Amino acid sequence: MNDNFLRACRGERTSPVPVWFMRQAGRYLPEYQEIRGKSDFLTMCKTPELAAEVTLQPVDLLGVDAAILFSDILIPLEAMGANLAFEEGRGPVLQPPVRSSEDLKRLHAIEPERDVPFVLETIKILRRELKGRVPLIGFAGAPFTLASYLIEGGGTKSFVNIKKMFFSNPELFRQVMDLITEVTISYLQAQIHAGAQAIQLFDTWAGVLTRHDFRDAALLYAKRIFSALRQSGVPMVYFVFNGGHLLDLVRLSGADVIGLDWRTDIETALFLMDDTNVVVQGNLDPCMLFLPEERLRDRIAEILYQGTMARSHIFNLGHGILPEIPPEKVKLAVDLIHELSG
Amino acid sequence: MNDNFLRACRGERTSPVPVWFMRQAGRYLPEYQEIRGKSDFLTMCKTPELAAEVTLQPVDLLGVDAAILFSDILIPLEAMGANLAFEEGRGPVLQPPVRSSEDLKRLHAIEPERDVPFVLETIKILRRELKGRVPLIGFAGAPFTLASYLIEGGGTKSFVNIKKMFFSNPELFRQVMDLITEVTISYLQAQIHAGAQAIQLFDTWAGVLTRHDFRDAALLYAKRIFSALRQSGVPMVYFVFNGGHLLDLVRLSGADVIGLDWRTDIETALFLMDDTNVVVQGNLDPCMLFLPEERLRDRIAEILYQGTMARSHIFNLGHGILPEIPPEKVKLAVDLIHELSG
Repeated sequence: MNDNFLRACRGERTSPVPVWFMRQAGRYLPEYQEIRGKSDFLTMCKTPELAAEVTLQPVDLLGVDAAILFSDILIPLEAMGANLAFEEGRGPVLQPPVRSSEDLKRLHAIEPERDVPFVLETIKILRRELKGRVPLIGFAGAPFTLASYLIEGGGTKSFVNIKKMFFSNPELFRQVMDLITEVTISYLQAQIHAGAQAIQLFDTWAGVLTRHDFRDAALLYAKRIFSALRQSGVPMVYFVFNGGHLLDLVRLSGADVIGLDWRTDIETALFLMDDTNVVVQGNLDPCMLFLPEERLRDRIAEILYQGTMARSHIFNLGHGILPEIPPEKVKLAVDLIHELSG
Repeated sequence: MNDNFLRACRGERTSPVPVWFMRQAGRYLPEYQEIRGKSDFLTMCKTPELAAEVTLQPVDLLGVDAAILFSDILIPLEAMGANLAFEEGRGPVLQPPVRSSEDLKRLHAIEPERDVPFVLETIKILRRELKGRVPLIGFAGAPFTLASYLIEGGGTKSFVNIKKMFFSNPELFRQVMDLITEVTISYLQAQIHAGAQAIQLFDTWAGVLTRHDFRDAALLYAKRIFSALRQSGVPMVYFVFNGGHLLDLVRLSGADVIGLDWRTDIETALFLMDDTNVVVQGNLDPCMLFLPEERLRDRIAEILYQGTMARSHIFNLGHGILPEIPPEKVKLAVDLIHELSG
């Protein structure tokens, strides 16, 4: 049983340092492509056998130290009553967008066993098939990030609609966020109940907020989630993408582990959090997997060295693996991380 | 003659604090829309009378303290031999992308008087029509940002192709950047010669780089530009969007003024640069223009207060004005800034 990931989450230094990668089950793997060629993305998320199979691929093929549930952060929004579609080349679309109290009435709280049974079934299959080899991570999108999809009606570059609501109709914004927060708590509780051994909250878009607004528009709700899940005893990771300017606030979220994107190096992150007694996860730029082996080794060594300054360190990328990355380079990175910290 | 902007650039504290807005000539203005309705975007950029007219609109309508040339950062790439098109809803497209030395051979250095005469003519018209009312700012995209469009073939979320080239073929990357840097220097020199009284270098995408890579992939080239233009005597602004993690390095660029996006407040920026003897420009989140007047006033007052901690301060947004913003709110912001710092 390789429990390096869970031990590192709890603040123990481990040798080797555990590693997993965001989007480690994904399009860069030919084995994933083969399954994806036969079913669309949402069908894969909703078919426990398929979701479990692609979740296990990187564990078998790469030797990572944790599995992460194959799913999508937008699944609970669909369960709440939003129309979710993935359009080729355009990303997720949620139409019509939520812009008024009338729109909000279309959405409702969820009962995970009824509304997302496939997620819970996937987790049960995975725990059986993993047989304790590595721990299984569950996850959810953080409320600000989920709300941005609901309010914008899909992806956005400007976040103008969600910010407009936050600035000009804070009461409606709060109602949307309260509902999403409630849903996320029950969704993650159900994942933990089904067998998830750690959870990660992805705040992919909260980095577009000023420090001032991050507190009121994102952190408040993330904190509520971590507080509600605290009694479950599973380690909790909070990852605010592009959140270098927010790190001291992120530190106050109540999460056990702070995920870092590649922009802010670990040493600087610890300085900004004014605290070295913190468990960090990160933070290789996924594009660095294009480096020649010797230079990749140097960058990994540097990140591992900086990781020793924290309480403990889980190696990861600073963002998801891109489809363009050669799988052999991903495997090489896992091997180098284990070798250099072993 | 209102020279508050130029005086603030040179480190003088002014009362009131000067203000201009990125994309102040833009789609949020009905007067702009009227002209845009009759010609496409590139035609507007290339027709001096139209470009000059929309440049002047915010000076007349809003009372800002500087005019900025209406143009696009991609104009010099087209002059270098790239195929530039703007597709509705998709943004700029530059096909085929530059990915090999063969591709690079399609591009060449420019002679501004021959290749972009319309830009220089626009500047001359503007200096005549402004009659010294407010100074005129010229601009260019910074080399990393321009290279990202060339190498990706348009906009991108992942920057995987430019980073791949930087990591796996640094020699080719350097050749692309050397050429763009040379072009940018002659482009900006020509703008200054034609009458631009200050220049801003927009590094919209360098914020996707780690600190380590920013030095080699972006800062090096930006520094070369500021160094070459130093003798012109015009004030130079460097704006690295989403560059909060890079500010101490940005400080070393040789620019006179450091532009800040809205994520990092001025006080934190000064702390990160470890220097209060710096001229800053920024940094209201454009979406805050949706705030009710009283709260907008508070936010502006806070930014002005933080600006007093720097050597001098030019008020701006942290990014371009969005088309959704009501023009009367933009005018209100200008008035509040002048009133609160007057």
